[in-house]
Amino acid sequence: MRNKRQSIKDIATKLGVSPTTVSFVLNGKGEEKKISKEVINRVREYTTAINYKPNMVARSLRTGRTKILVFMVEDISNYFFSRIARIIEDIAYSKGYRVLFCSNENQDKRSRDLLNLFYERQVDGFIIIPSSGIRSDIKELIDNDIPVVLFDRYFPDLDTHYVVIDNYAASKNATQHLIDNGYRNIAFITTDVQQLQMLDRKRGYLDAVSKEGLQPTVLEIPFDDTDSKKGRELLRGFFSKKDGLDAVYFSTNYLTRSGLEIIKEIDAQAIADLGIVTFDDNELFRINTPTISAVAQPMEAIAQELMRIMLHLLKHKNKVSETIQVTLSAELIPRGSSLAKEKV
Amino acid sequence: MRNKRQSIKDIATKLGVSPTTVSFVLNGKGEEKKISKEVINRVREYTTAINYKPNMVARSLRTGRTKILVFMVEDISNYFFSRIARIIEDIAYSKGYRVLFCSNENQDKRSRDLLNLFYERQVDGFIIIPSSGIRSDIKELIDNDIPVVLFDRYFPDLDTHYVVIDNYAASKNATQHLIDNGYRNIAFITTDVQQLQMLDRKRGYLDAVSKEGLQPTVLEIPFDDTDSKKGRELLRGFFSKKDGLDAVYFSTNYLTRSGLEIIKEIDAQAIADLGIVTFDDNELFRINTPTISAVAQPMEAIAQELMRIMLHLLKHKNKVSETIQVTLSAELIPRGSSLAKEKV
Repeated sequence: MRNKRQSIKDIATKLGVSPTTVSFVLNGKGEEKKISKEVINRVREYTTAINYKPNMVARSLRTGRTKILVFMVEDISNYFFSRIARIIEDIAYSKGYRVLFCSNENQDKRSRDLLNLFYERQVDGFIIIPSSGIRSDIKELIDNDIPVVLFDRYFPDLDTHYVVIDNYAASKNATQHLIDNGYRNIAFITTDVQQLQMLDRKRGYLDAVSKEGLQPTVLEIPFDDTDSKKGRELLRGFFSKKDGLDAVYFSTNYLTRSGLEIIKEIDAQAIADLGIVTFDDNELFRINTPTISAVAQPMEAIAQELMRIMLHLLKHKNKVSETIQVTLSAELIPRGSSLAKEKV
Repeated sequence: MRNKRQSIKDIATKLGVSPTTVSFVLNGKGEEKKISKEVINRVREYTTAINYKPNMVARSLRTGRTKILVFMVEDISNYFFSRIARIIEDIAYSKGYRVLFCSNENQDKRSRDLLNLFYERQVDGFIIIPSSGIRSDIKELIDNDIPVVLFDRYFPDLDTHYVVIDNYAASKNATQHLIDNGYRNIAFITTDVQQLQMLDRKRGYLDAVSKEGLQPTVLEIPFDDTDSKKGRELLRGFFSKKDGLDAVYFSTNYLTRSGLEIIKEIDAQAIADLGIVTFDDNELFRINTPTISAVAQPMEAIAQELMRIMLHLLKHKNKVSETIQVTLSAELIPRGSSLAKEKV
């Protein structure tokens, strides 16, 4: 068993020199500080022999930099978030940063616990998908001069850097696509959370149907029940009763999963006859029968913008004059599930 | 704008007492150290008023504990890994630990960079899916008395704690299931990586087919090309030529995705006629047409075992006499894609 990690003090004692001398040599300042060649060599040989590694915790304390970023998502096991996490990680890795991922489950308490913990550990910056009740916590980070970039949603009354997509336009466009293809009785399945991006998606749907004089049908599943037995019962009840429906538009990928499964369970044929569009793409939608039409968020561009802003803030020690707010477009990918109705 | 974080020294200067006094009060040792009630109250009131938060980096340096664990996976955007990451995170959160996720892309250099970085930062423990060339790095962590638990694969000649599944038995069973259902010409699509778990899956397949006197057909896609154009060409070439095939068994979920897409592209009907089984389940396999049979790894149990071992090591400061090695079973979930051949 190898001995435990040696500190600079241990090395100094061992070699009979001062800790400052060891530190100068290790930081490449031996000659500048007029330390003798002999001592420099002794320190170098010994630290190489014991495979000395600097204590980065101590270094962080001196520099105030940890080279760690936090990326707080709603749920790291959601494909949309994990995919963006991975792209962010790759960009950060190439710039010498590590990324700490965590899931807040859209709960304010958990968000707050995590923010406090990481703040105490002095990470260098935060990329956050905020839960709705943590506006004041975000404000506190910003007031304390910590680089913060929000993502997916933001607080309209808080001046923050953020990257979002134009949910309203994307949703209106997806609904219009179904209308253009001959669907007239389009249900919108969403959650009841009052998050900006979900409200924008709903607004897009409502405006598109009302513009055409169609009747909106909205089912809101409680956020905590989107994957529960109760949520599935709500979906089952809804689809069992709604005979006139000719299309369904899901506002988020986790609802699509349960929704399609239940439609299939009630009537295996229905999945071929209904018009279907979902928000958020998934690689498996391309192999489904029918292939599923989806609103694809530009994951690569989102991750790149988030890191571009974050690296900009870090470079300028968070002293930037303007607030950087980026809104990207999402692209509808029409597939077999929303073909023009006559052709179905 | 709020002032920057105050240190214990700042607080001491502000209140006209010594930093040691402030530190004793904040650590609840004011009375024990005979500090006057008046000073204790003054320190408490002031630190509450400024919302003082201890510098955890400094505390980590004193205690040698960071309450951070590292979970190194191959790719955090792979559903299998991100799902386990999420369960580990929830268990860790409930025990006061944070989890740092990172992806090594199955590259030794990246694994090594990450291990060194986190080792330098003195995280409390590592849960690692090792790339194949980092045996000596893992050994170094263990020799340095750092809690390490491997997952998914291990080094047969290195005595480590680990949690794996019985890949050989699960794979043999999945192949046998296809044989029992009347399939005779079963292809095994896998990658060329020499990872233990992949070799075990191949061995399970080969033993099952040879036991029945059937001919094995193995396609190995280079690991770096599983999602590339070249990999897709290999798959396309393979499926275009293999007319006699009546079943396909995919060794891992990312190959299933490309494989099914290409089968469908070549002949939309083939996907209904072929027997299909894949290693690793996905929620969307339940809604596919046909639903896809899958070998489901017990994600909840894997995550729980990993954390049980890690918390045990942390509790005993890594001084445990036995090496804990857990092998779990994976369950075949037969679905529509591998029904008995007569019924197809």
